[in-house]
Amino acid sequence: MSPDSASLAGQPLTEADTPALWVDLDALDHNIATMAGHCAAQGIDWRPHVKASKAPELAKRLIAGGAVGITCAKVGEAEVMAAAGVTDILIANEIVGPRKVARLVDLARHTTICVAVDDERNIREISTAAQAAGVQVEMLVDINVGANRCGVPPEQAPALARLVLDLPGVSLRGLMGYEGHVMGMQPEDKEAESGRAADILGRAREALRAAGIEPRVLSGGGTGNYWIAASLGALTELQAGGGVLMDLSYMDAMKVPGHRHALFLDVQVISTAVPGRAMADAGWKSTGMHTGLPAVTSHPGVRVARLNAEHTILERDAGVALQPGERITLVPHYSDSTVLLHRHMYAVRAGRIEEVWPISAAGMLQ
Amino acid sequence: MSPDSASLAGQPLTEADTPALWVDLDALDHNIATMAGHCAAQGIDWRPHVKASKAPELAKRLIAGGAVGITCAKVGEAEVMAAAGVTDILIANEIVGPRKVARLVDLARHTTICVAVDDERNIREISTAAQAAGVQVEMLVDINVGANRCGVPPEQAPALARLVLDLPGVSLRGLMGYEGHVMGMQPEDKEAESGRAADILGRAREALRAAGIEPRVLSGGGTGNYWIAASLGALTELQAGGGVLMDLSYMDAMKVPGHRHALFLDVQVISTAVPGRAMADAGWKSTGMHTGLPAVTSHPGVRVARLNAEHTILERDAGVALQPGERITLVPHYSDSTVLLHRHMYAVRAGRIEEVWPISAAGMLQ
Repeated sequence: MSPDSASLAGQPLTEADTPALWVDLDALDHNIATMAGHCAAQGIDWRPHVKASKAPELAKRLIAGGAVGITCAKVGEAEVMAAAGVTDILIANEIVGPRKVARLVDLARHTTICVAVDDERNIREISTAAQAAGVQVEMLVDINVGANRCGVPPEQAPALARLVLDLPGVSLRGLMGYEGHVMGMQPEDKEAESGRAADILGRAREALRAAGIEPRVLSGGGTGNYWIAASLGALTELQAGGGVLMDLSYMDAMKVPGHRHALFLDVQVISTAVPGRAMADAGWKSTGMHTGLPAVTSHPGVRVARLNAEHTILERDAGVALQPGERITLVPHYSDSTVLLHRHMYAVRAGRIEEVWPISAAGMLQ
Repeated sequence: MSPDSASLAGQPLTEADTPALWVDLDALDHNIATMAGHCAAQGIDWRPHVKASKAPELAKRLIAGGAVGITCAKVGEAEVMAAAGVTDILIANEIVGPRKVARLVDLARHTTICVAVDDERNIREISTAAQAAGVQVEMLVDINVGANRCGVPPEQAPALARLVLDLPGVSLRGLMGYEGHVMGMQPEDKEAESGRAADILGRAREALRAAGIEPRVLSGGGTGNYWIAASLGALTELQAGGGVLMDLSYMDAMKVPGHRHALFLDVQVISTAVPGRAMADAGWKSTGMHTGLPAVTSHPGVRVARLNAEHTILERDAGVALQPGERITLVPHYSDSTVLLHRHMYAVRAGRIEEVWPISAAGMLQ
């Protein structure tokens, strides 16, 4: 329904109606080069997660920038990415139940598919379906490296790995250990806990080796700790991907070094009737706020005081004038909770829309 | 991409893959009858807001249940609803700028469209566009009844109303006063503040009358206070609509009486590898959490401890067993922050899917 579609390519960003989600291509390219370069310097592969960006065109840009493939959270996301031409996908999550397993196996017909596993019955379920379909699904045995979410302890890894090796239709790629619990920690704790997580993953690798199994891949790391995790010697493949968009939570709360803000939201003032305030046309239905509020980058002396469902509540210093119709640029607090609310994002360089990227994997929750 | 589409009508809900958002039609019909009946008993019209539900099929069910039309927050939502056949829409917000005003005017070609206004230039902008298009846009002068968001004080209402009456292409329907600030208040404060808001709106009505202008409609009220607001004598039309879905925030925090939970999210256990816990396949990307956590309705002794982006972290009493693949039913904490994350919801009666409703207005943010 929105008139702000592909027809805006080539136009100034100001032609896109608000709220307008956009990516600064210069900053994006800088962030991609930073993450890819860090992995290359450490001699590991980069398989960035696209759970934050959800746009196939952006995923292809990651691969063009050096990624060996992508990481997804959901089968539905992987289906969108595969349909757009991405050929190597890790689903860094347990995929359970006959419906999703059937779709997982179907993806494996045309795409290299790898999935995390931590349960014997689940491994058997996927094996049976893959064998029936005549495809191969690769597997990473998921290790609980301290997040206490999914994954087995290191000592249980050899039995699951052996099962994967013995069953038809599935093959063992290696181990996964995602240290989600360290991302928001203070720098000193983050370093120590990333080290502990790497040690646990290393113990799982040694347990496999003691059982005569050599894991080809050890996968983990998030944007909140990737510059630490990539150097610890445990990982052969980094999953961190959100840092290419670089939001406030990554920069301010997680202290990710060397990146630039690449994701922005242009909003428009719709009311200045209440003295000292201004309302803009984007609330928490346009930019997630459970981690914090967005920041104004375009107007000194103007701040986001609150978000309602449909309104940005702006406060302004005395003497700062705002009128209905004025455009204001925000940097979202968290890309993960913002991008999924939109249907497309504008890829912008120097104020001009180069491309319009559908956010096709948003809402693909199954 | 999702296989869970219209083909599931007639199937058991358990055939819908998780996370599966669904509406209990018996509870929905009860809630619709409760709200419509309350308005009828007070002799006022019901124009429920569809910002929470975003599904045209649900909107049409509201009209079939007695609503005189619907309320939307965005032009994009109104476009979706009009395309689906809804013919009478209030956009309870200021619509600013040439692009959105052009679309507003375009809607008025085939639909009765009314919009909130609080600014002279905005009224002139809409008038000029509507006159050029040869259509009429109705207007409610927006009164700030204490929310301090949009709207003018009562004493400024007559000048804006007079301008609307004098300009071509636009016509005056009346006044709007949305008391968003009272919804989360404790019962005693809520009653007092709803009364104060009604008094302010009443003062605006009297100011209009003193200027010789009779407003046909006074519009306001939310689910959090509708049973109070509808009885105060100020409103002729109630905007409250979210209560038809009736989530935890409305029931527990806002103490809305007489409704039943109608919105649910079925999730699936994907990992029980960490002792004492279970992970399910829906995080805050499937059910909003900035107001609070969802509750488990299907399994005594199982609780939602936390939500991560992609995971429900469940805790269970000793002796309660959960296995990967098990389905668990949640009631979302807030429908507004949940429905917009999905692409369809299942309309279910007694465990059977009667219809599959596209959530077509989700993401229509412009």
